[in-house]
Amino acid sequence: MQRYKAIIAYDGTEFFGYQVQPNKRTVQSELEAVLAKMHKGAEVKVTASGRTDAGVHARGQVVHFDSPLFIPEEKWVIALNSLLPDDLSVLTVEMVNESFHARFAAVGKEYRYRLLLSKMRDPFESRYAYRYPYPLDLEAMQAASCYLVGRPLDFTSFCSAKTEVVDKVRTIETIDYVLDGDLLTLRFVGNGFLYNMVRILVGTLLEVGSGDRKPEEMADILERQDRRFAGKTAPAHGLYLWEVFYKKSL
Amino acid sequence: MQRYKAIIAYDGTEFFGYQVQPNKRTVQSELEAVLAKMHKGAEVKVTASGRTDAGVHARGQVVHFDSPLFIPEEKWVIALNSLLPDDLSVLTVEMVNESFHARFAAVGKEYRYRLLLSKMRDPFESRYAYRYPYPLDLEAMQAASCYLVGRPLDFTSFCSAKTEVVDKVRTIETIDYVLDGDLLTLRFVGNGFLYNMVRILVGTLLEVGSGDRKPEEMADILERQDRRFAGKTAPAHGLYLWEVFYKKSL
Repeated sequence: MQRYKAIIAYDGTEFFGYQVQPNKRTVQSELEAVLAKMHKGAEVKVTASGRTDAGVHARGQVVHFDSPLFIPEEKWVIALNSLLPDDLSVLTVEMVNESFHARFAAVGKEYRYRLLLSKMRDPFESRYAYRYPYPLDLEAMQAASCYLVGRPLDFTSFCSAKTEVVDKVRTIETIDYVLDGDLLTLRFVGNGFLYNMVRILVGTLLEVGSGDRKPEEMADILERQDRRFAGKTAPAHGLYLWEVFYKKSL
Repeated sequence: MQRYKAIIAYDGTEFFGYQVQPNKRTVQSELEAVLAKMHKGAEVKVTASGRTDAGVHARGQVVHFDSPLFIPEEKWVIALNSLLPDDLSVLTVEMVNESFHARFAAVGKEYRYRLLLSKMRDPFESRYAYRYPYPLDLEAMQAASCYLVGRPLDFTSFCSAKTEVVDKVRTIETIDYVLDGDLLTLRFVGNGFLYNMVRILVGTLLEVGSGDRKPEEMADILERQDRRFAGKTAPAHGLYLWEVFYKKSL
């Protein structure tokens, strides 16, 4: 058996998220169906760096799988893409050591959230950016971000109350803002993110940007360790799992 | 009655083209349904600068309609967009003189065709660009374009055999090429375009770019006045009706 690492991209609009669910179209089930086809019907389990929710996109999701087939890396890419649907694509396939694990070996992730700051609907962005037509104070948002980055913090207030993991301490290294015309992209790089965490961070930062909250409130929200004190969960369709980081040695 | 001119944009993927067809989702039928709603069920006919085929997109399609409602221009935009689906949006509404006609007053159009020059599928471009993974000789394509622009020419060879209009002489002012990373955009500006004309031009230019034809063949194809001598019709999903031009005085 050979372990393979693959980087995949998907438009999340028409998937019910990453993880297999009965009778739903999911990223994992599409991947496993294609791999089963390549293995004469034998089941091949795919493990991802983490789930993404329904409607969330990925530019650099990472998965691994084990296969008895010794196919050159670039041939895997061609074979998989010839069978996968248009909204899901394999970017690279790499032979890796058995010790590689897409989830457990990940040391960090980058997520991006795209906001369309326009009163005008854009039919070409309706699936790919959350339209926010109100004025935003970017400096206030950046000030609020400073409370959230650079050191280990308990993000209990900024994750879904349904989160199952116990340890909710994570470190966000950076939150930065890139404005390109009327598209504002928020980039989050950190060692890990909890369930709905980026979407709740974005929803809360938007409340700061619109003047409904003060940047200083972030300290209080963190301290409360209670989801109810943070802002709304921003919609899924603005969110992209952009990159997953691993130690170089793997 | 007041005549209104509207500029609209749509993602053509999920429309069966612009024009009303029984039991199909079309741009015109969505617009007319929303206008009927705003007019208490009364029919309001919408006239466009021209049809677009199934899958073809528009950034600047122009339509006109007559209404007894005197609503300020910016209120029309808000009202229409609040009722229209996500893949169809009204960009501007303008009061115009009764002599304005979206089709007959048009003096020119710009179409764009987007090509993704990549061996890799991109799930975020699969609806919006035609992927062409083979090498292209851009200089040969530009040389071929020179045979097609700058003077009135009979484009019988470059339109669908089903084209109903009799006069097939059109002038293409410019065909230009913009390469941005692996996205190549072909821009066509002219006084009018026949049925499938841009898609057949693109298909033929791609055959020049890939070395299957010589640039000089364009003269011969034009002269034949027979669709069978031109190249394949490029797929709909790379094509955008970008802008429609009118005389300033209107």
